[in-house]
Amino acid sequence: MSNILGKNLTLTLFGESHGEAIGAILDGLPGGVKIDRSYMQEMMDQRKAVGSLSTGRHEADEVQFLSGVKDGYSEGTPIALVIANTNVKRKDYDALKDTARPGHADYAGDVKYNGYEDASGGGHFSGRLTAPIVAVGAIARNMLEEKGIFIGTHIASLHGIKDRPFDEVHLLEDVNYLNKCTFAVLDAGVGECMKAEIEKAREQCDSVGGILDTAVVGLEAGIGEPAFDALESDIAKAIFSIGAVKGIAFGAGFGFADMYGSEANDPFAIKDGKVVTTTNHNGGINGGISNGMPVRFHTVIKPTPSIAKKQNTVNYRTKEEKVLEIHGRHDPAIIHRARVVVDAVTALVIADSLMERYGREYFGGKRR
Amino acid sequence: MSNILGKNLTLTLFGESHGEAIGAILDGLPGGVKIDRSYMQEMMDQRKAVGSLSTGRHEADEVQFLSGVKDGYSEGTPIALVIANTNVKRKDYDALKDTARPGHADYAGDVKYNGYEDASGGGHFSGRLTAPIVAVGAIARNMLEEKGIFIGTHIASLHGIKDRPFDEVHLLEDVNYLNKCTFAVLDAGVGECMKAEIEKAREQCDSVGGILDTAVVGLEAGIGEPAFDALESDIAKAIFSIGAVKGIAFGAGFGFADMYGSEANDPFAIKDGKVVTTTNHNGGINGGISNGMPVRFHTVIKPTPSIAKKQNTVNYRTKEEKVLEIHGRHDPAIIHRARVVVDAVTALVIADSLMERYGREYFGGKRR
Amino acid sequence: MSNILGKNLTLTLFGESHGEAIGAILDGLPGGVKIDRSYMQEMMDQRKAVGSLSTGRHEADEVQFLSGVKDGYSEGTPIALVIANTNVKRKDYDALKDTARPGHADYAGDVKYNGYEDASGGGHFSGRLTAPIVAVGAIARNMLEEKGIFIGTHIASLHGIKDRPFDEVHLLEDVNYLNKCTFAVLDAGVGECMKAEIEKAREQCDSVGGILDTAVVGLEAGIGEPAFDALESDIAKAIFSIGAVKGIAFGAGFGFADMYGSEANDPFAIKDGKVVTTTNHNGGINGGISNGMPVRFHTVIKPTPSIAKKQNTVNYRTKEEKVLEIHGRHDPAIIHRARVVVDAVTALVIADSLMERYGREYFGGKRR
Amino acid sequence: MSNILGKNLTLTLFGESHGEAIGAILDGLPGGVKIDRSYMQEMMDQRKAVGSLSTGRHEADEVQFLSGVKDGYSEGTPIALVIANTNVKRKDYDALKDTARPGHADYAGDVKYNGYEDASGGGHFSGRLTAPIVAVGAIARNMLEEKGIFIGTHIASLHGIKDRPFDEVHLLEDVNYLNKCTFAVLDAGVGECMKAEIEKAREQCDSVGGILDTAVVGLEAGIGEPAFDALESDIAKAIFSIGAVKGIAFGAGFGFADMYGSEANDPFAIKDGKVVTTTNHNGGINGGISNGMPVRFHTVIKPTPSIAKKQNTVNYRTKEEKVLEIHGRHDPAIIHRARVVVDAVTALVIADSLMERYGREYFGGKRR
Repeated sequence: MSNILGKNLTLTLFGESHGEAIGAILDGLPGGVKIDRSYMQEMMDQRKAVGSLSTGRHEADEVQFLSGVKDGYSEGTPIALVIANTNVKRKDYDALKDTARPGHADYAGDVKYNGYEDASGGGHFSGRLTAPIVAVGAIARNMLEEKGIFIGTHIASLHGIKDRPFDEVHLLEDVNYLNKCTFAVLDAGVGECMKAEIEKAREQCDSVGGILDTAVVGLEAGIGEPAFDALESDIAKAIFSIGAVKGIAFGAGFGFADMYGSEANDPFAIKDGKVVTTTNHNGGINGGISNGMPVRFHTVIKPTPSIAKKQNTVNYRTKEEKVLEIHGRHDPAIIHRARVVVDAVTALVIADSLMERYGREYFGGKRR
Repeated sequence: MSNILGKNLTLTLFGESHGEAIGAILDGLPGGVKIDRSYMQEMMDQRKAVGSLSTGRHEADEVQFLSGVKDGYSEGTPIALVIANTNVKRKDYDALKDTARPGHADYAGDVKYNGYEDASGGGHFSGRLTAPIVAVGAIARNMLEEKGIFIGTHIASLHGIKDRPFDEVHLLEDVNYLNKCTFAVLDAGVGECMKAEIEKAREQCDSVGGILDTAVVGLEAGIGEPAFDALESDIAKAIFSIGAVKGIAFGAGFGFADMYGSEANDPFAIKDGKVVTTTNHNGGINGGISNGMPVRFHTVIKPTPSIAKKQNTVNYRTKEEKVLEIHGRHDPAIIHRARVVVDAVTALVIADSLMERYGREYFGGKRR
Repeated sequence: MSNILGKNLTLTLFGESHGEAIGAILDGLPGGVKIDRSYMQEMMDQRKAVGSLSTGRHEADEVQFLSGVKDGYSEGTPIALVIANTNVKRKDYDALKDTARPGHADYAGDVKYNGYEDASGGGHFSGRLTAPIVAVGAIARNMLEEKGIFIGTHIASLHGIKDRPFDEVHLLEDVNYLNKCTFAVLDAGVGECMKAEIEKAREQCDSVGGILDTAVVGLEAGIGEPAFDALESDIAKAIFSIGAVKGIAFGAGFGFADMYGSEANDPFAIKDGKVVTTTNHNGGINGGISNGMPVRFHTVIKPTPSIAKKQNTVNYRTKEEKVLEIHGRHDPAIIHRARVVVDAVTALVIADSLMERYGREYFGGKRR
Repeated sequence: MSNILGKNLTLTLFGESHGEAIGAILDGLPGGVKIDRSYMQEMMDQRKAVGSLSTGRHEADEVQFLSGVKDGYSEGTPIALVIANTNVKRKDYDALKDTARPGHADYAGDVKYNGYEDASGGGHFSGRLTAPIVAVGAIARNMLEEKGIFIGTHIASLHGIKDRPFDEVHLLEDVNYLNKCTFAVLDAGVGECMKAEIEKAREQCDSVGGILDTAVVGLEAGIGEPAFDALESDIAKAIFSIGAVKGIAFGAGFGFADMYGSEANDPFAIKDGKVVTTTNHNGGINGGISNGMPVRFHTVIKPTPSIAKKQNTVNYRTKEEKVLEIHGRHDPAIIHRARVVVDAVTALVIADSLMERYGREYFGGKRR
């Protein structure tokens, strides 16, 4: 129980919203993994603030490698990367000192850290911390794509507005399409409505959330563990480390509650000599192990807790109730930015699981 | 990625449905934790098959301690417990050899284990494995209750039939009530309808699932970790290790997708000099850390995959398609049995998290 | 910090000297690893008491598998094995109640476990616990031998009596020879002197220790980690889990203290197109990584703390000083029994390290 | 098996000798631990190059905190620190390209990393990496000293020249004295001889090693684990992560090989109502658990492998033998610098072990 994710491929995270810098250590890569800076930048840009839909805080988010990378390849030694915090406006938060922002970890963190943490801007709990996650996730996604495994996520619904579902028959095309989008929806028209809804929330000094729908295409059968490291367990654990996530469900998810077993079970069949299922209600996972079908899950992202609307809260130091009015820089929605973070942690978990079976060298570069 | 759950308090699981025995090792307890056999038996009974609602397989499920327990107290050394498999009917499964039962891990497991696993009765993936989990969970629940922390779960919905929600004002009463029930519903009348629905499913050679609603009352604020070991992450990881679970959501869960931030945020207030929230949409967790309110989450349990209805599937060895008709002993529903397993793993995770902050001795017995 | 060893291949240990049974869980094996019972028994016999040289306690030490093994192969699921404690004589220890036996963990354990542990016969600290380690170690040694990696240990010195050193030129022959010996010395004559020395110690109601010299032949270069999981770190960690071990040194070991760098460095050369070193003062490890030369280390085993001689000690409950006279069943030496335990844990660590690089499937059975 | 040390208190290490910077993440501290920069600098200076006794490479080794520290106290969030590499002379190493320096990890690392690592200056294997270890170790030592636990190490022997042993009766005084010394010997006269010996080695283009003797004073009884996380196991694992270490032995260490049990056992006695032992041959540890006596161990440091003398070696890329002459900047001895690294990792392990029993909050700052 620490700030470390993974077993064979470990991600260590550090930093605070208003600190010097944020960053991560990625350890467990073999030597010779291609580090594609432009691909990484693409992913970083997908996470970045886009126009009026997002926070006023603009950061270059330039990834600087301190170790582990040489001439565009992993060395095999720990990769340390830092991202400077340049656009810090502490004074925005002075008024919030010792104030529990509803929906935020200020109070919980204050108790946990005995009052010593730098809570300004959310401190260590800030969404800023997802930037290094996306950076290392890009490396993992590169590795997986080399193996024919592709991950994509779209905004299935935003404050009730629904995108069209994935096309199960042309899933890979959908995934590839999404990975080129800044605002990840399959139906561009729906996307415009969603953007308008976000705008509306901003005008109301409010915020909205939604549901992300993720697909992992190309993962072979037999990956994962039976009990405590079920593939669902490890993906869920990683996904819940993303601030605004409050739920995850695989395949038919909560829909299973209203189905009969005969509807829920996915019949097996033989296609081109390969074992497949004719439906995928189980989201590509049986008993915690991948079954060769696409891994599918939905993630719910709550509305951004930082809103400009007046809210009742307390000063947790003086134990006085107060009315809160936040004037900082905030996102009326983060779901369109969160999607690439979901892709990133998913990639890390799947790469880690493959290493469990095939070892670090599975992703290793040709001896040179 | 192994069969081990937890960090300070570790549970190691072993066994197969038709093997000699199943069991677990619980390590990390201090010396002097009371081991209440009758409480453990109560929990074991809640998991057991009840009449026609459940499987024809009846097991004594007698817990035998091989080590770590002496005179009714933990010694502090690893607790090893075994539960014999007495009622094994391998021949029921001979017809299923190399057959992928839809919704089961037979095929995925066959690939993972290169064809060497004892798949009979689900092998290591069998629900039988939840018996030792409930046994050690009972120990953890005892420890937590000593600290004023109580866990309870009810069947919020079964194939569309809904129980009344928890009474937030008298939550502890509801929890205590449930922990005395064999069939965990808050509204007895609804319970009868659910049982009838299960009966109906059986008659149709089918099965049903549902949603479990869990509450943890009495957990202090400040427990959990900010990123990868968020309390939500660790609970989710543990819950997904239960076979039929396909989704988990905290607080308002997937409902957040349709809310405004101003609705989703829980206003803080002072009550009896203590910081509380006036609503609990966030399920007692902010930024991965407990905030002192009850921890609340829903878990979806899919319909039992083993059904008597004919199903299309394949022989994964010969790669031939076939029609499957299962004649083994199966449950038309397992949700009423799964609830105590959810309580058990939740207790293990919370005890582990408390040890992170206060150490093993927090639960330690008085020096003797 | 638990009773678990390893990362990809994990060994969980349990049991007490006078408990029901002792045992272990071995998790992380792929399906299809050959489980050679007769080889396992050979190793168990090497650990067993031999005639008057050892304890009066005779145990069948029959290994019973509860799970994970089928038709002579690993299933890939956790292997649980138990060894019954049949020859228990608690009354031998009644006189020792609350008495700190010098050199033993009675007192340290009493403090750690708050006085709740079953200290009888050493409880969880008993040498008995090495039996399951040898059993699972045999599985690991089998796996390694399939890959051309052989491990052997001889008694380099016993109470000052020295065996001839390993023949570096015919190291594998020496290793194979030792693995057939019950009393592991390279010079049979020296072996007789050592046995006489052990006899002499017994007659004096005393005990003796010595130094074990271990060689691992056939391990490729590039295995291990640079910093905290140096191959030396992981081997040392495992070796120190053996009760009587008080020191370990690789290659020239403490002899390095008197050498010049020009003497200590191993010159590299090319032999049959392969990189080798012409000396092996570094014991096959540079910077924590194997360099392709045999891995070599010495382990010191202290004299058995249980002696019949009168000793001054205390009752740690009453805090009274007392004179102790032990009448139990004890070994005048355990070094000749410890050697196979050293081989076992070494095998577990090396198999684990290879899995890190090549994955679980490196040792996997051919798909069937 | 990664670059992470510890369980409750985790140290993640990164960097290369000639990279941008080196550093570490320390996670698991509670909020409110005093971060004493001047104490940290003292420790850093003890590790630094001193005059002609050491390398020509001089680094400011200024510790920069990127996160986790605020107003001189730990925040409770991960502490990230970096140390810039300013004095890099790559060209010194161009001649060494693909050359296996005897006693170094160049070749082993090349195999492990498939030829992609930045081997220049030893790369990730460089002694430079011990700088961040000393920095975080200083934090741990501070924490322990608050609890009355003090750690000290002296050069017991250097190339055969021996310091006087620790004064068991006035051990704490010796420890305090050493922690003020730059060249850690108890007998200043002997220190001069040692320095002369180092000088002599330099003149001969050679190097020397020696033995470090460490004492931990004030650790209570009952700390550590019985089997795989024996206190000896965890200390040894950490110590072997230090580059030049080739052996470790507790208490009488390899001397046990020539003792009788009656000599080796430490008689227990009562002193001021406390259980003590009248000798400490077991180095304060019985069965892997601290017994309340000072923890004592010796560590052997091999002579610096980098020497100016001509050496036979190979180019591991071309597989050609060659004669090596190193012209870089090297230490004729590093033992006097290594001692504070030994203190640092020992402190980390002991703080971690105490957290296991008492939790993170044991070291926590008063709520503010």
